[in-house]
Amino acid sequence: MGHTSQLEGIPQLLSFINDNETGLHHDFEVWLEKLAPHEPVKQYRHNVGEDNADAHLKRQVMGREVVVAVTEGKLDFGPWEQIFYGEFDSRRKKRVLVKIIGE
Amino acid sequence: MGHTSQLEGIPQLLSFINDNETGLHHDFEVWLEKLAPHEPVKQYRHNVGEDNADAHLKRQVMGREVVVAVTEGKLDFGPWEQIFYGEFDSRRKKRVLVKIIGE
Amino acid sequence: MGHTSQLEGIPQLLSFINDNETGLHHDFEVWLEKLAPHEPVKQYRHNVGEDNADAHLKRQVMGREVVVAVTEGKLDFGPWEQIFYGEFDSRRKKRVLVKIIGE
Repeated sequence: MGHTSQLEGIPQLLSFINDNETGLHHDFEVWLEKLAPHEPVKQYRHNVGEDNADAHLKRQVMGREVVVAVTEGKLDFGPWEQIFYGEFDSRRKKRVLVKIIGE
Repeated sequence: MGHTSQLEGIPQLLSFINDNETGLHHDFEVWLEKLAPHEPVKQYRHNVGEDNADAHLKRQVMGREVVVAVTEGKLDFGPWEQIFYGEFDSRRKKRVLVKIIGE
Repeated sequence: MGHTSQLEGIPQLLSFINDNETGLHHDFEVWLEKLAPHEPVKQYRHNVGEDNADAHLKRQVMGREVVVAVTEGKLDFGPWEQIFYGEFDSRRKKRVLVKIIGE
């Protein structure tokens, strides 16, 4: 097989690919807060003991893991694309998992 | 290649990875109903003959297939992560497709 | 390994798998415009020089790349599933990247 590909998995929190451009991360934060507001905390049934239900919903929109093609040894992105890592609930240590498939 | 990985594809409906924690599935349902309400059915152009347009939208938020790394023979999850299967329109029989890539 | 799988990556804009059914694409457009409205353009901090912040958000909901299993030489879809390509900001030429993993 002459193709190679790469899997990037970031368990536990969120990762996504989008363009690395000015203002976008702030726009994502504001937008996610509108789609899945943190407050009022009691609106979520999950929030017993902890209050991070909204983080679970936000992560669902943004994604958990990304899959990126590798071409000639490089991540095959659009001109401004990049992999980002995010978190909305930072209680625990995180780890990043990278798997490479192919030759 | 010393890496192994696993693809889990659930065609037709939705599958996602999130934490297996109390109340979360109820929170997902309420949230998705807010993001893509079933009623009024006529708001969607797709709903001619069937009325499941909202199920198509909800699935877009939640995801169709999941990609999970396998490390030392185990699905490589965060501490509470699990693969879930969901459906919002249960007219037909479903099947789960699992593909394993690597050695 | 007796399994084959296929990665389809469409860098730069959006791609997704859903059913190829009447009215759905219109419903997606209306829905995404509600979730991440283009106007007012000034609501997004990214919109300095360009005005496509909403396109970045919409793409996050719909997805960037799709992963499809291949079984007996065919894309393994549900009965009505198909891969779609979309764009909300069409300034540049696009390319489609397909990677095939397995035997």
